[in-house]
Order: sequence, then C-alpha cells, then structure tokens
Amino acid sequence: MLFVRMGCGYDAASTVADVLVEGDLRGASSHGVTRVKDYYQLVEAKRLCPSAVPEVVYQSPSTATLSGASALGPVVAQRGMQLAIDKARTAGTGWVAVRGSHHFGVAAYYSSMALEANMVGVAMSNGYPLVAPVFCTSRMLGTNPISVAVPALRHSPLLFDFSTASITRSRLLGAAADRVELPRGLVQDALGCPTTDPSTIQRGGAILPLGGDRVHGGHKGFCIGAVVDIFSSLFSGANFGPFVPPPVSYLPLPSERVGEGIGHFFGAIRVDAFRPEQEFRQAVDQWIEVFRTAKGVEGTPGVMIPGEQEQLTKDTRLKDGIPLSPQVVRDLNGVAKVLGCEPIPYTPDSERKNEG
Amino acid sequence: MLFVRMGCGYDAASTVADVLVEGDLRGASSHGVTRVKDYYQLVEAKRLCPSAVPEVVYQSPSTATLSGASALGPVVAQRGMQLAIDKARTAGTGWVAVRGSHHFGVAAYYSSMALEANMVGVAMSNGYPLVAPVFCTSRMLGTNPISVAVPALRHSPLLFDFSTASITRSRLLGAAADRVELPRGLVQDALGCPTTDPSTIQRGGAILPLGGDRVHGGHKGFCIGAVVDIFSSLFSGANFGPFVPPPVSYLPLPSERVGEGIGHFFGAIRVDAFRPEQEFRQAVDQWIEVFRTAKGVEGTPGVMIPGEQEQLTKDTRLKDGIPLSPQVVRDLNGVAKVLGCEPIPYTPDSERKNEG
Repeated sequence: MLFVRMGCGYDAASTVADVLVEGDLRGASSHGVTRVKDYYQLVEAKRLCPSAVPEVVYQSPSTATLSGASALGPVVAQRGMQLAIDKARTAGTGWVAVRGSHHFGVAAYYSSMALEANMVGVAMSNGYPLVAPVFCTSRMLGTNPISVAVPALRHSPLLFDFSTASITRSRLLGAAADRVELPRGLVQDALGCPTTDPSTIQRGGAILPLGGDRVHGGHKGFCIGAVVDIFSSLFSGANFGPFVPPPVSYLPLPSERVGEGIGHFFGAIRVDAFRPEQEFRQAVDQWIEVFRTAKGVEGTPGVMIPGEQEQLTKDTRLKDGIPLSPQVVRDLNGVAKVLGCEPIPYTPDSERKNEG
Repeated sequence: MLFVRMGCGYDAASTVADVLVEGDLRGASSHGVTRVKDYYQLVEAKRLCPSAVPEVVYQSPSTATLSGASALGPVVAQRGMQLAIDKARTAGTGWVAVRGSHHFGVAAYYSSMALEANMVGVAMSNGYPLVAPVFCTSRMLGTNPISVAVPALRHSPLLFDFSTASITRSRLLGAAADRVELPRGLVQDALGCPTTDPSTIQRGGAILPLGGDRVHGGHKGFCIGAVVDIFSSLFSGANFGPFVPPPVSYLPLPSERVGEGIGHFFGAIRVDAFRPEQEFRQAVDQWIEVFRTAKGVEGTPGVMIPGEQEQLTKDTRLKDGIPLSPQVVRDLNGVAKVLGCEPIPYTPDSERKNEG
C-alpha cells in the first residue's frame, strides 16, 4: 500500500514489496524493507518516478534494451528479467540490458525467476561507486553483484549471489557502527594505503576489489567488477563506474551524467537449448552432491553450497517471521504516517512484518 | 608442421600453432609453445586425437553444443567460438557449450575473435582441479579462466583475461622453483591450514579461490570459479570440478569420469543487438579514458586498463621476437626430432621462434 500511495500502480507496488521482503527473507536485510524509507525519499527528491513505465527501445531475436524511465528499480528489473525469459523461449537464450533504473534489491530475486521456466538465470547490476581499482585512490566501481540461478532435479536450485568487492557496504557500515577493526586487505584510506579502519570510507577511503591488493589478485577482482559495470551500462546506455547515482537521496548526484540512471544486465538460458533438460538437472544434482561431500577443514562447517544458507534462513523466516530492528520499524511507520497508511503493530519480542 | 606430423589436418595444425604463439606473444608463456611437448605426449598417450573433427550435437537459434571428440583444445575451441559468432549474426547473441575438449591455450584468443565481427566475445574453460573451496581440504576446481573482449572506437579493445583463483599454477610453480615464500592468503596445506610454501601443492595442498579465506571473500571467489565450472561442463556434458582430466600425460586420469574431456563456454554478443554500434564503441572509449585518468596511488603505475599490458608485450615481441627459455627450445627440438621436422636454430642472445 505504501508504494501505491507513493504513486506506483498496484502491480508495480506489489513487485517492489515482493522484492524487498525477499531480501529480508533471505537474510539480506540491507536489501530488505529498510529500503522503503530510502525509496520514499528518492521519490520525494524526484529522483525516482513511481508511475513511470519501462519501455523496450531496441531488440533482436535474443536481446532487448529496456529503458527504465526512472521507475523503481525492482519494477524495471522484474520487467527486464521477464523479457529475457520471453526471448529465451524462442531464441534459446535471452539477454536484456537495462538503463534508467535504480537500486533493485536482491539480485537473486531476478535470477530465480528463470527457474520455473526451466532456465538458468543471470542477473547483475552496477552500483554507486565505493570500490577503488588496484593502484587507484578513487572510488570507481560499485560492489556490483552477480547472481546465477541453476535448476537442479531433486535438490534445491544452486543460487549464486555475490558482490564483486572484498566486502559489502553493509558489512562495512556494521563494522563502523560497532567500532571493530577490519582484517587487512579489505579497505584503503584516501591515499590508497592499507587500513583496518571501517570508517575510512567516510573520509575518502575505498573498498578494495575482491582479492584485495595486487599480490593477492585484486586486479582480477577489479576485472570482474569492471565486466559487471560494462555489461550493465555500455550495452544499455546507463551511467557507468564513477557516474552511477547513489541509492539514497542524502548523497548528491554525481556532477556529470554519462547515461541514464543505474544499469542492469539480465540473462535467461533455456537448459534444453544445450541438452535434454533431465540430463542437465541430473548433472546439477551430481555437482551439488560431489561438492557437498568434499572433505571439510576440521572445525569448519565444510563446503557451503551456494544458496543453501539463504534458503534455510528463508524457510525459518517464513515460519517464524522476519526480525526487524526497532529503527527499521520506526522508519517504516514514519513513511506510513506521512502517506496516510496504517502503522505496523510492533512488539519487540515477536517481530513480524507486513507491508506492501 | 609439428602438428601435421602428429596427425592434425593443415587447418587444425595452423590453428593450434596460432593459439600457442598468441600465448607467447601476449606474455602468457605458460600457455605458449611450451605446450607443444605436453600436447605431443598427450597424443602419444592416446588422450588426444589430432585427427578428430568436432561435431555440433545440439542447437537452438542462439545456442549450440559442440562435442570436441578429443581433438586438440585450440581446434575445438576455435570451432566453438566461430559457431557462437555465426549464431550471433542472426540471433543477436550466440552461446556455445563444449565438451570433449582439452587445454585450449589463452582464453583471450577466442574472445578476441568476436571483435572483427563487431561483437563482444566471452570465453571460459574449466581445468584440472587445483583450487579448494573455502573450508575444504580437497582440490575441487581449476583456476578456471574467463576472458571478455570489448570493441572500442579509437582505443584498443578492452581485453579481460583472468583466472578465478588467487594465484595461477604457473606463478605458483615459478615461486616453488625459485624457492621464494608466498604472501599469506594464496595457498593452504593438505589440512586446509594457511601456508606460505609454494611447494605445498606437491604435498596435497591447494590454491585458495580469489579472495583467499572466508573473511577476505574467498567464498565469492569460489562462486565465480564454480560458475565457470558449471557453465563449462553442465550445459555440454563435460567433466566437472574434481573430474577434469589433467593437461599433461604424466598426471594420471581421474579415477572416475562424469562427462567428456574438458569443457568450455563461449559467447558472442552483437553490439548492435543492444544499441547502434557507433554509440557503443564511443561509450567504451569514454569508459577507458575515465578509468585510465583516475588518480593513481603515489609510487604505483596507476589504473591498468585490462589488456593494455599484454598488447604492449605483443607489439614488442612482434618486432623483437619472443624470448624462449633454453628448456622450451630443447623440448621443441626434441619433439621436432621424433617427428622428423627441422629443429629451431637457437642462438641464446637473439631468441626467435618459428614453429607450426
């Protein structure tokens, strides 16, 4: 209801609510309903246009370019992924480049959309610059997530969803709030020197690419983040690297614009465009079993199958509810009040959420 | 000529020579002509079949599955990438999964093939297991390279080519030969404990994924390596993870086979399937300029544009020749002698190479 009051159509509002709740369900609370307030403030600042309808501006049998027209990120992204799936039905694969979008929540939401269609799903996005390339003092890339969903037969799907930076913004902010030192190799100060201070990001510091410094392969992490940036922006005409706008209204827009909004890139790959579906799914099962039963290091949980932990969290939260911090509830109710919606009844011990 | 004598057709022999020389030209000597001896020994061991002709076994408008039939890796891979390019001409994108292949040399060779067709090229391969997932003592993944080639307008193309492990096998062997300690965070011993000893790999140790341990994001590096493994093997029916056969004949074949040979995955993306070609190329130029001029850390070379260093090396080597170690020349001439070919005239100071 909150998003309808902000100006979204009913379908769009329902998509945004779905995506944010999925973030909380999977334990990615930084991409959950905590974003309602951010989205609201971006709407108020006229950086988001809730009533906008994304439009296909270019296409081929297996591709399309979608202009998001500054609609809410989840609305644009859901449309983009659906388009990729539709293209794949006839062409075998579908690939959609998106511009003019915004923060889209958990990438796994979109890659997973392909599963029901017997497809492998791919979703990626660029983001507000926080990561410095190796040997650079400036923040040039976002933490640029990639998600890949792979359908299995008897097992749950493989669900990869990872940022291409050495540490995510939310983990960094958490460490800064708790005043704990980081291990070396995750961040640098404004001069590009190694530091363990998580608050360095507030004083011109930067996150290192996955790998860390040059000797630990940070240049490879930079490559991966750069490929996500390029796929998300240059095919579609979105802003790239340092020009990607922030996901919150209290940060200023970059001084220069080189494209439209944030960019995403989606892919859907029909499994039976390569081999019979059953054969593929059996092979995925076998892959999962071989990796799950690999010998673990003593005193550790052993090999973690991508997506398994998040699925467990989701199962628990679907049963027991989602724990929300008092601050998130206050923020949600603040937005609800301004928009004339009912507040969430908040009981600190059994915290449940309903919104939409 | 060496490869013709091994049993390749003329075209196939020329492709293999081209690919290996490209490795040396780009400075990736571990994927250069040093492999001639390895390939020869694999042929002798009947693990490679030089006269085999790869065959398309499955397809859709934008995809195909290629069975390599144990032909030499570069022959299979070149055919796979060409097929992807051909598919992209009509479908907008082309994606080819390959099984029954072998070591394919430098991945950048294949991704670059797309450039002339005004396409972005993607090439990846799984490989012999050397990398342990986080919390695991076993070697489950190869160093699984990814290469992406992106055409620019006035600038040289962007050419990404990186392994998804924290350190490559060749750098590791180099450090072991030189008896130098590695920095922490690159390898582990047979029990999964951190070590700085590069020879640990010979005693059951393993390379860490890009990122290193859990706290430095090694689980993300594992995800990337796993995605390359899955794309390279499960779409095509190649061996995956721990079952990938070794690239040399002196290592035994894995005790179990779950597919055919090594797997690759190739992609070709027509730039004008997303936006007008000129616009895209201009945006790539702009991307390169923005990253090249980003502020460097004092005392460092600053941001390195992917592919630039390798292009400089290639330009120099095309002019001055390729330096080959005496051992590589001895190996080449050893193979030449057995096959009844002329040896390379070797003068230690001005080392040049000709073979094929």
